[in-house]
Amino acid sequence: MAAVISIVGVSKSGKTTLLEKLIPEIVSRGYTVGVIKHDVHGFEIDHEGKDTWRLRRAGARTVAISGPKQVAVMKQLSEEMDLELVAGHYFDEDIIFTEGYKRELKPKIEVFRKDLAERPICGDRDNLIAVVSAEDVEVSVPVFRPDDVKSLANFIEERYLKSRKQFRLVVRVDGKKLPMKEFVQEFVIGGLLGMLSTLRGYRRPGKLELVLNLDDEKE
Amino acid sequence: MAAVISIVGVSKSGKTTLLEKLIPEIVSRGYTVGVIKHDVHGFEIDHEGKDTWRLRRAGARTVAISGPKQVAVMKQLSEEMDLELVAGHYFDEDIIFTEGYKRELKPKIEVFRKDLAERPICGDRDNLIAVVSAEDVEVSVPVFRPDDVKSLANFIEERYLKSRKQFRLVVRVDGKKLPMKEFVQEFVIGGLLGMLSTLRGYRRPGKLELVLNLDDEKE
Repeated sequence: MAAVISIVGVSKSGKTTLLEKLIPEIVSRGYTVGVIKHDVHGFEIDHEGKDTWRLRRAGARTVAISGPKQVAVMKQLSEEMDLELVAGHYFDEDIIFTEGYKRELKPKIEVFRKDLAERPICGDRDNLIAVVSAEDVEVSVPVFRPDDVKSLANFIEERYLKSRKQFRLVVRVDGKKLPMKEFVQEFVIGGLLGMLSTLRGYRRPGKLELVLNLDDEKE
Repeated sequence: MAAVISIVGVSKSGKTTLLEKLIPEIVSRGYTVGVIKHDVHGFEIDHEGKDTWRLRRAGARTVAISGPKQVAVMKQLSEEMDLELVAGHYFDEDIIFTEGYKRELKPKIEVFRKDLAERPICGDRDNLIAVVSAEDVEVSVPVFRPDDVKSLANFIEERYLKSRKQFRLVVRVDGKKLPMKEFVQEFVIGGLLGMLSTLRGYRRPGKLELVLNLDDEKE
């Protein structure tokens, strides 16, 4: 599972601008990066009259455009997807930055500007790990200058990327991750590969995905 | 797995217009619908200067916007995703229509206009199941009029929706589906649920997802 770090701060504090400088710095170190932007007010990515817009208006719940160099997916929801689920289902990057998601308990970097607010919006209970500010701020975490993304990238790399151990097994039960100790993981992996290895067409996988639907007993 | 039907036809033949009428008709019968548009030339869904555009330009490989009513994901690719993979990973609707994908072997409905082409672009080997045309066409499959989407919806419902049995188990090895006979599926499902049921936090799932990474032996 990717490391997830939230960039938070009041409106106009410079979250996107920070990410615009931070992302290339992290990418240049050989890591892949994803971003999840939280839009509490809803958003319109599509434009009136375009094919995708017409199809969604006609009632298509999910619309994707698939091309040689990119794929885009738009999905109508009846309720907001958990950050955890968005990250786990759509991302396979080494690190994911979120813009927003102050209420989630992911490690947070706050972008702070003294002319916009008296003090940072994150307190001690918010899992704040750093502040980015042009001026000194009284906080118990490291403060980085907005133009010194190298130092911030060092900090993130040391703490969240170098030590990161890739997950081996993730099991989700109705979307919720099932916690598993390492020896249990090994046990399940062994059993599963053992069963599957007897099947025609099997070869030891780099990645194995398994989806099991038990909801259709009604059919 | 959803039924996947490709809507094909030359440019301007009216594929999107047909879908605009067909989708609400299918939705009104209680099914969920998704659409995958194939864009061989590449596309730009984003707009210069917008936050998502800036983040992608900065090097973010995947960018998502998550809101209360919808989620949108844009992913940069090094090679095009298979239709099968796009459908399996991003969709959980009852039926998926594709716009384009003439070369794939999914069942096809061709939208045909005599003023645009002499004959349909699909031949017998293309898995053509129906033609939509305002004029008579000599083909061995049913022909539906563009304004009679009810009949076309009946045809699709009978053939692809009513009979559809939901999948119980899908196993992908490095993205490729592993074929499994039904009794083998039952065996794997039984073994898996048996193992997992001994874990704390387990309850019998409606849906179980399992992702296993063996690639990181290098780490």
